[in-house]
Amino acid sequence: MVSEKMKELGSKRSVIRDLFEYGKLKASEVGEENVYDFSLGNPSVPAPKSVEETITKLIKETEPTLLHGYTSAQGDALVRKTLADNLKKRFDAPINENLMYMTCGAAASLTITLHALAEKDDEFIAFTPFFPEYRVFVEGTGSKLVCVDTVDGSFQIDGEAFEKAITKNTKGVIVNTPNNPSGVVLNEESANTIVEILEKKQKEYSHPIFLITDEPYRELIYSDVKNPCFLNLYNNTVLCYSYSKSLSLPGERIGYIAVSDKAENKADLYASVCGAGRVLGYVCAPSLMQRVVAACDGETGDLDAYRGNRDILYNALTEMGFECVYPDGAFYLFVKSPIPSAEEFSNKAKEYNLLIVPADSFGVKGYVRLSYCVATDMIKRSLPKFEELMKNYK
Amino acid sequence: MVSEKMKELGSKRSVIRDLFEYGKLKASEVGEENVYDFSLGNPSVPAPKSVEETITKLIKETEPTLLHGYTSAQGDALVRKTLADNLKKRFDAPINENLMYMTCGAAASLTITLHALAEKDDEFIAFTPFFPEYRVFVEGTGSKLVCVDTVDGSFQIDGEAFEKAITKNTKGVIVNTPNNPSGVVLNEESANTIVEILEKKQKEYSHPIFLITDEPYRELIYSDVKNPCFLNLYNNTVLCYSYSKSLSLPGERIGYIAVSDKAENKADLYASVCGAGRVLGYVCAPSLMQRVVAACDGETGDLDAYRGNRDILYNALTEMGFECVYPDGAFYLFVKSPIPSAEEFSNKAKEYNLLIVPADSFGVKGYVRLSYCVATDMIKRSLPKFEELMKNYK
Repeated sequence: MVSEKMKELGSKRSVIRDLFEYGKLKASEVGEENVYDFSLGNPSVPAPKSVEETITKLIKETEPTLLHGYTSAQGDALVRKTLADNLKKRFDAPINENLMYMTCGAAASLTITLHALAEKDDEFIAFTPFFPEYRVFVEGTGSKLVCVDTVDGSFQIDGEAFEKAITKNTKGVIVNTPNNPSGVVLNEESANTIVEILEKKQKEYSHPIFLITDEPYRELIYSDVKNPCFLNLYNNTVLCYSYSKSLSLPGERIGYIAVSDKAENKADLYASVCGAGRVLGYVCAPSLMQRVVAACDGETGDLDAYRGNRDILYNALTEMGFECVYPDGAFYLFVKSPIPSAEEFSNKAKEYNLLIVPADSFGVKGYVRLSYCVATDMIKRSLPKFEELMKNYK
Repeated sequence: MVSEKMKELGSKRSVIRDLFEYGKLKASEVGEENVYDFSLGNPSVPAPKSVEETITKLIKETEPTLLHGYTSAQGDALVRKTLADNLKKRFDAPINENLMYMTCGAAASLTITLHALAEKDDEFIAFTPFFPEYRVFVEGTGSKLVCVDTVDGSFQIDGEAFEKAITKNTKGVIVNTPNNPSGVVLNEESANTIVEILEKKQKEYSHPIFLITDEPYRELIYSDVKNPCFLNLYNNTVLCYSYSKSLSLPGERIGYIAVSDKAENKADLYASVCGAGRVLGYVCAPSLMQRVVAACDGETGDLDAYRGNRDILYNALTEMGFECVYPDGAFYLFVKSPIPSAEEFSNKAKEYNLLIVPADSFGVKGYVRLSYCVATDMIKRSLPKFEELMKNYK
């Protein structure tokens, strides 16, 4: 009667949403202050003041039929020019405003790019751990998601495993750095490994393999490390970006796709992006927000708050004996479960009203994800609970 | 290398966009005041003042992490409640806020609904003339679009033709009233014909056939006619709505899907809508605009301006000898070409700098579409040009 596939996807809630709903219920029983919810990746710092100021200014100064009118499907020309100029300045990368396409956020950037590329029997690779929706988006095109394990503990690239996973059907590879859920920033060696293997395999199979870089956390880096700019390392790169995290605008659904100016047959690739956006029903990205991000591009919310949260939580948990990779970016802590089953560990944590996400659906077993985009005060109050939790495993 | 289908869809511009681009070029040659562009359906009246006021108020009074934060995928619960209450009050229809799903506009409402329903070998029916993107959206699900001609001249429903077109594979029927491009509002007889035939065919094939009502022009009615409310006539109805035209917010991409509270297996159908939204990458509808439309729902831009435009253009053109169905709603005039080829007629019109859209891609040959959501002054100045154009055919 209806699409079984869609029904199933719409019926089962993600484990993250499940925990979040459980938390709301629990809070109504025991009081909000007694529930320590680390489940959601919803920015806790407000959008920079300039967002509010820009909206107010645009509303006052722009003719409403223009401000709220259709932009071209690719996005307003001036918006794209502004963003392209900024990107070129920041990264000195092969960016061209005529190869940029404004989107309704990162999920739209990814689905549009995947639909633009996917043909029958195609495969797309993701490195574990990865954002679980990658599977939904890739399989939604009819393609196969191939998972490649990273080095256990560091989550950097395992070149051998990567090379083995590439077949003649590999159309693209998704990288996400800083990473959700691990917080890991890929180092130079990992970046070079990816690029070298892709170059080699492209030659071997005589067709392009595209690197799709999912970069919503690009600006959320707290240590003295450099996030690789793949546009400068590999020609067949498609950058997928969202302002959800950098400008704390996740609900507004605004981001972009940038096809590398050095990509093979870049005009065809870009046309395909435009076609995919059309087929999926994205007429244009929200017009007011297009102008807002053009004005505020390069700014961020208060990243110091996230850095502070990371330091408190990472230091306390490792001191208690938890194992955890040091997260240079994003706003997640990826903690090794002291027992093999992350789900069992997450359930045990629930007894202390600690809501932490078992990471099986992220493609790695035996880990939990803690989102530290929360009130610092909640983190501080949660620490004795983590102590108590840890006592079960000592 | 890339998806051929997507590349093709992204490469060829619609005839409407082509004309619009031509108009901009021409304007730079002969002056904007000498080009009479009737190509685009972009609202010419500004959003009601309350939109600006609501945005300003929300920005001032709402915590930014809430205002710009993720809403649930279905849309903010309070927004859905407000809209459902309003709809129930206005139409006394089987609406349930828990079967409503906020979307990024009408195109998203349609693509999500179609993906929610489509299974292998499915067919969807559209009545001619229809918005050309219906074909893109239906074929994008892998289904077949079946076109059913309406009564020539009146564009009301031809029951016999409709009944013949329904097969065991018919999953849904798209209706659009008031209609783009004809401006026609379906009369009671047409509405009853559709419903009777669907009820009969559902029984015959022992499975539901869904009625998908695309209603962005619902509020744009200028005559004393009543737009049918199919939710009250047929249980298996899915209402697709957008605020693009009623609130003049086409660029903001905001609308909704309402599954009838009387639909068969409504929970499955709604779950499927949620799943389709997820697969297509729609995380949630833009959060600020969700609240804006909840506050402004039921208001409209200045419809009198459109009514005035319709009257001037319709009266003048019919007086000159053009044949044209009287448009009760939307903001289009559907004019019969005085020669068999609408394309040739449109090209002839270009010689007078009149930009009118040949309607072949709307599924009807021998007509042109004129969008009268333009400045009244431009319409008045264009009339002598239409006179000159008509002289060629007298």
